[in-house]
Amino acid sequence: MSEMTGFKKQAREEMFELLRIPSISTDPAHKADVERAAEFVEKGLKRAGMTRTELIRVGEGHPLVYGEWLGAEGKPTLLLYGHYDVQPVEPLEEWISPPFEPTVRDGNVYARGACDDKGQTWILVKAVEWLMQRDGRLPVNVRFLIEGEEECGGESIAAFVEEHPERLAADAAVICDSEMFAPEMPTICTGLRGIVYGELHVEGPRTDLHSGVYGGVAPNPLMAVAEILTALKGRDGKIAIPHFYDRVETPAEEEMAAWETLPFDEEEYRRKEVGSPELTGEAGYSVFERVWARPTLEVHGIRGGFTGEGAKTVIPARAVAKISLRLVADQRPEEVVEQLKAAIEGVTPRGVRASFKLLHAGAPSLVDPDNAYVKMAASAMEEVFGQRTVYMRSGGSIPIVGLFDRHLEIPSVLMGFGLPDDNLHAPNEKFHLANFDRGIEAVARYLERLG
Amino acid sequence: MSEMTGFKKQAREEMFELLRIPSISTDPAHKADVERAAEFVEKGLKRAGMTRTELIRVGEGHPLVYGEWLGAEGKPTLLLYGHYDVQPVEPLEEWISPPFEPTVRDGNVYARGACDDKGQTWILVKAVEWLMQRDGRLPVNVRFLIEGEEECGGESIAAFVEEHPERLAADAAVICDSEMFAPEMPTICTGLRGIVYGELHVEGPRTDLHSGVYGGVAPNPLMAVAEILTALKGRDGKIAIPHFYDRVETPAEEEMAAWETLPFDEEEYRRKEVGSPELTGEAGYSVFERVWARPTLEVHGIRGGFTGEGAKTVIPARAVAKISLRLVADQRPEEVVEQLKAAIEGVTPRGVRASFKLLHAGAPSLVDPDNAYVKMAASAMEEVFGQRTVYMRSGGSIPIVGLFDRHLEIPSVLMGFGLPDDNLHAPNEKFHLANFDRGIEAVARYLERLG
Repeated sequence: MSEMTGFKKQAREEMFELLRIPSISTDPAHKADVERAAEFVEKGLKRAGMTRTELIRVGEGHPLVYGEWLGAEGKPTLLLYGHYDVQPVEPLEEWISPPFEPTVRDGNVYARGACDDKGQTWILVKAVEWLMQRDGRLPVNVRFLIEGEEECGGESIAAFVEEHPERLAADAAVICDSEMFAPEMPTICTGLRGIVYGELHVEGPRTDLHSGVYGGVAPNPLMAVAEILTALKGRDGKIAIPHFYDRVETPAEEEMAAWETLPFDEEEYRRKEVGSPELTGEAGYSVFERVWARPTLEVHGIRGGFTGEGAKTVIPARAVAKISLRLVADQRPEEVVEQLKAAIEGVTPRGVRASFKLLHAGAPSLVDPDNAYVKMAASAMEEVFGQRTVYMRSGGSIPIVGLFDRHLEIPSVLMGFGLPDDNLHAPNEKFHLANFDRGIEAVARYLERLG
Repeated sequence: MSEMTGFKKQAREEMFELLRIPSISTDPAHKADVERAAEFVEKGLKRAGMTRTELIRVGEGHPLVYGEWLGAEGKPTLLLYGHYDVQPVEPLEEWISPPFEPTVRDGNVYARGACDDKGQTWILVKAVEWLMQRDGRLPVNVRFLIEGEEECGGESIAAFVEEHPERLAADAAVICDSEMFAPEMPTICTGLRGIVYGELHVEGPRTDLHSGVYGGVAPNPLMAVAEILTALKGRDGKIAIPHFYDRVETPAEEEMAAWETLPFDEEEYRRKEVGSPELTGEAGYSVFERVWARPTLEVHGIRGGFTGEGAKTVIPARAVAKISLRLVADQRPEEVVEQLKAAIEGVTPRGVRASFKLLHAGAPSLVDPDNAYVKMAASAMEEVFGQRTVYMRSGGSIPIVGLFDRHLEIPSVLMGFGLPDDNLHAPNEKFHLANFDRGIEAVARYLERLG
């Protein structure tokens, strides 16, 4: 595929252009940028030869970019999914190069969204364009569905998939938004955790109070947040929400046995990836089980009081903690939200009022590794990478997999080309450029095989 | 004293001018404003007739404003203390009128620093000026010492008092930085809590991590902060720092008996002042004991992770909690800092490193109500207010009282004219203008009596 050289160069440049758009979907201040990214993607789909493209708007949400080419009669139809929105960039001071100025260092491009998910989305677009340029047609039918709310709840795509399954009729979905187990090791993801993300609101005094004058009698909402969080999750990593573990399924023996054959050095992982003095979590479970097959509770930020330079002796009137629960099959987000709310009520200290405000949720999902679409993807990747494809799960959440399963009744093939150290959601996010190239080749080859 | 009318009007206008200067000492961005406030105060002291004034600089700190008039041979010398710096103003959106635009509503002036302590500082300045204008001299000798770091640790004044006690030689100090027990009820404060204020720093992963990918194995510094805080202070309000209570003294029977005679409706206090569903704190102690005679631990803010709009699924690399301990006699700040550090070490969860960084500290202090200077102040206030002066303590901290005691060996007379609902350190801080006027009269009369 050396004739791809000029094509690859062009593909990278387009990806960089997309990376320059600060499409932070969770921040209302970036609404116009998100819109601009959607238009950029639609233009890309047109260029790739889609016969029809559309920006689909659901309510006030960020647009879904849709594109289709359905000229391969009698052949399967693939639904190609990615997202063009990105996470916020804080803490900005920790970025070596600015998050929205894609910069190449050591064969990687550094930028917010490089791996998650603009780079990987662009793999799908360019694989299709490559085949179209070469053959004037595609070996299979394709529908693109690229969303702009993956990092902020995905309400638009959820509503659209539920209400218009007929417009997305397909035989399988291909999702390019996950990672490889290790460099050079083609990987298919067979399981994702679900998520419940929201805010714990705590209200105490009517107004901020002086901690000298009132310390000793006034409830402190920040302390109450700490008390509630530690009551919900013990130091042993166990979540103390009644009935929370009732539906948690243990992975099959053979799946866990396969995980044990993956090349993995726990000490190196601790040192290089996590970088903390020790790994934590539930005793009696392996690292893979803890991140792929066990639910968790995390706190992401606590607002309230004074966090600036210097000293302010305030007992704040209110505090808010951003928290999330990762779920595993067969936990149900709606049910977990109710369990969480009841648990918060049960552990709220006296003197304050506490409530939980849901921001978004997504179900966990499992993919059958014996499915034909999955197997064919695995062998296409094997050809390009020259290594056996491995199966892993991911601790992250791609709620769309559950939606495709439930409303379109199709399996999702998770071909991921990110690397474990790509700094997703963190400063200095990057994407390995060689994987961008190989990703395009692997997806193109997969489509050829399916055709 | 009706002839004071023009004088009073002028006094108020000067105070408002001082209130317009945003002298937030804890914020380096306001350094020039703090300087401007110091110059304003020095000018005021000159106008009041001080024969010598000076801006005293200790290291890089905010200047101390000094002024003296020592022409009353054979008479006592008073050291008059106040501070011209103020607390930060966050949350700005809760102010009804802007914090640095003094606004009069219902007989109160609303502004940051109105009560704490620009308004009260100006009482001292104008009382002296009033006598000077009337008599061309003062009945006693006075030294003013007005600092600009009361809200950020007071390092300059501490160093100066320790190193140059001879320059502050006096018989008693008068401190105008406390509050009245109730409107119309002249009050002298006989006890203050000490303080240890600092930051709890927690470090976990080397960089921010994706909570999907690493949730279950990576330590979460925000959770660790919650675990440390709840380990240091129980839901029962007891502080679980070993030996922390060893030096805590119980107030004398008769002092507590006097507190019981103060007009106080706990339910009204809860509803109107604290505004929370319930009062909290240690069981078995009265409200007065809890805020005046018992130590506490409070958290003022927690930094780390993501607290903006929307959702970010991050496990932060580090977190910082601003915390303080209020101390009561006979606790020693230096000793408490060591106790706290040891306690933190003992309760830090695995996977993170935690440390305590001291920002400032001050010793608790008690004043003998039978001291002659205290008694004379009480009767001067009684005359002006037409009500018996009561004795209370304050839960806040004025570290200077301990310093004057230790290095100058003089008692401090805490004549306070603030009201319990003056919103110190909170939005909509105010000062009752009638108390400003009466404060000037009471201080002037006190000086006359001493002379």
